[in-house]
Amino acid sequence: MIDINQVIESLDWSKDPKGLYEPIGYTLASGGKRIRPTLAMIASSLFGGKEEEVLPAALALEVFHNFTLLHDDVMDRAEVRRGRPTVHVKWNDNTAILSGDQMLIEAYKLLSHVPTDKLPQVLQWFNTMATGICEGQQYDVDFEQKNEVSIAEYMKMIELKTSVLLAYALKIGGYIAGANPAQLESLYQFGLHIGLAFQIQDDILDVYGNPETFGKAIGGDICCNKKTFLLLTAFEKADPQSKAELQQWLAISNRNQEKIAAITAIYDHLGVRAAGETAMEEHTTLALAQLDTLPQNEATAQLRSLAERLAARKK
Amino acid sequence: MIDINQVIESLDWSKDPKGLYEPIGYTLASGGKRIRPTLAMIASSLFGGKEEEVLPAALALEVFHNFTLLHDDVMDRAEVRRGRPTVHVKWNDNTAILSGDQMLIEAYKLLSHVPTDKLPQVLQWFNTMATGICEGQQYDVDFEQKNEVSIAEYMKMIELKTSVLLAYALKIGGYIAGANPAQLESLYQFGLHIGLAFQIQDDILDVYGNPETFGKAIGGDICCNKKTFLLLTAFEKADPQSKAELQQWLAISNRNQEKIAAITAIYDHLGVRAAGETAMEEHTTLALAQLDTLPQNEATAQLRSLAERLAARKK
Repeated sequence: MIDINQVIESLDWSKDPKGLYEPIGYTLASGGKRIRPTLAMIASSLFGGKEEEVLPAALALEVFHNFTLLHDDVMDRAEVRRGRPTVHVKWNDNTAILSGDQMLIEAYKLLSHVPTDKLPQVLQWFNTMATGICEGQQYDVDFEQKNEVSIAEYMKMIELKTSVLLAYALKIGGYIAGANPAQLESLYQFGLHIGLAFQIQDDILDVYGNPETFGKAIGGDICCNKKTFLLLTAFEKADPQSKAELQQWLAISNRNQEKIAAITAIYDHLGVRAAGETAMEEHTTLALAQLDTLPQNEATAQLRSLAERLAARKK
Repeated sequence: MIDINQVIESLDWSKDPKGLYEPIGYTLASGGKRIRPTLAMIASSLFGGKEEEVLPAALALEVFHNFTLLHDDVMDRAEVRRGRPTVHVKWNDNTAILSGDQMLIEAYKLLSHVPTDKLPQVLQWFNTMATGICEGQQYDVDFEQKNEVSIAEYMKMIELKTSVLLAYALKIGGYIAGANPAQLESLYQFGLHIGLAFQIQDDILDVYGNPETFGKAIGGDICCNKKTFLLLTAFEKADPQSKAELQQWLAISNRNQEKIAAITAIYDHLGVRAAGETAMEEHTTLALAQLDTLPQNEATAQLRSLAERLAARKK
């Protein structure tokens, strides 16, 4: 398979004006798992698609994903991304806004190279996906201010914010390669469920990850009262006493190490980790079941192994 | 002709999440001249195009234009737009960034309704136009820090920042209606030149406009040392003494009324206003000449009258 990293590195951002394009090159050169373009390429190869036909859409998905990170980092005031200063830190907010805008446009420029007969449908799905991401981001912001968030609302939010991009990467890849509607739906559902499993696993690792392999500080979500799968499950499972304790700790904004230890203890008491692991395994199983309806070849094996690795990952 | 304002007002932004869509509705409801969609509609009617076929692209251009204003206002820290608080003032910066992003995506959603056979070309031109706007905005930012900006560089910047959107609005409208390549080029050039004339007129009005009809304070560009057509022309025409005086006044950042009066006097002395008016009239003439190569009908008359009104405007 084409080396996606190599293709991304070969994109030329040395154009003028430098202030617009350099931050785009910087963002795209910072690595990452390239999981979205990889999913599109695998979905295409599953149906014997030509690599050069799916490549523009695959790249568009990766550029789009990196655009969302760039603007999210401004909104979250994040200072580091993948071990390097974020664009708004290295340059400034205005650069991050404008170069981010251009990056979104660059995604559509790449998309315009999708084979003409497939372009109208791909553009429509891409737009739906992009809208989902923005809506998911807004719900995530809204949840910070909202007192009661149900697990169903949380799952809807992470579906929009994380899963929809994976699902459409697969669906678009398969569509360009000529998959039929039932197969496209299977690919889409596979993507949705691995995305949900991935996000729940993320929430679990933030509390129960190994500090040496996790790559960031343990308990970050707890410190900032982030409404994660674990916290919402804890509220759902809590007896009145545990609920009162939880609320007490949420009201405390210093004493971080104590807070992490106390809330983790409540999670342990309520069996929240096991609930998370069960949910994650359920979504992984649902994802894997979709693969049974698809042609069985090397690409299907790659998707299976990818789902299993995501579920078993430690960082 | 379809009432563009009415169509824009009929777009539904009452969707969830409200925090994402309300600022889009607010921005689009704030009026404006709707000149870009109007140009696309006129260009289409010039070639007997069907209104419903050009309408999605026309709306996409207007939504895109308003997206640029939304993000520009954040970057410029502008507090008022069309007499109302800007989005980042009424809500906050993060809302302005995210709703702006969604607005750009909404433009592409509208664009996806362009007739299928015309979509690949229209998408490509739209992307080129959008890229031009971002590049123009970056050059404008760069110019603030740059000591020497030539008039040629300035013209290139306003071509990107202002003209290209007008030019592509006309070209896309004509293309969807079936105009031939020579006619599309004439439409494009007409748009470029009215855009340049418009921007030069803007620079003149900022200094020489009638305070009662101009709608904003006179001398705003002078106060903030903005490199306008007038200032760059003044530097080009200045004898050593005038140049020294100009530079002295540029170094002063308080005493605004005195500064406006002094720099205006230098402009008067150097004949800068007349140079601006000549340049503006030249571009208007160049624009009007393009119309001679196009079919002569009611639409051509509308374009002619529009160019003449832009050149004669007082605000």
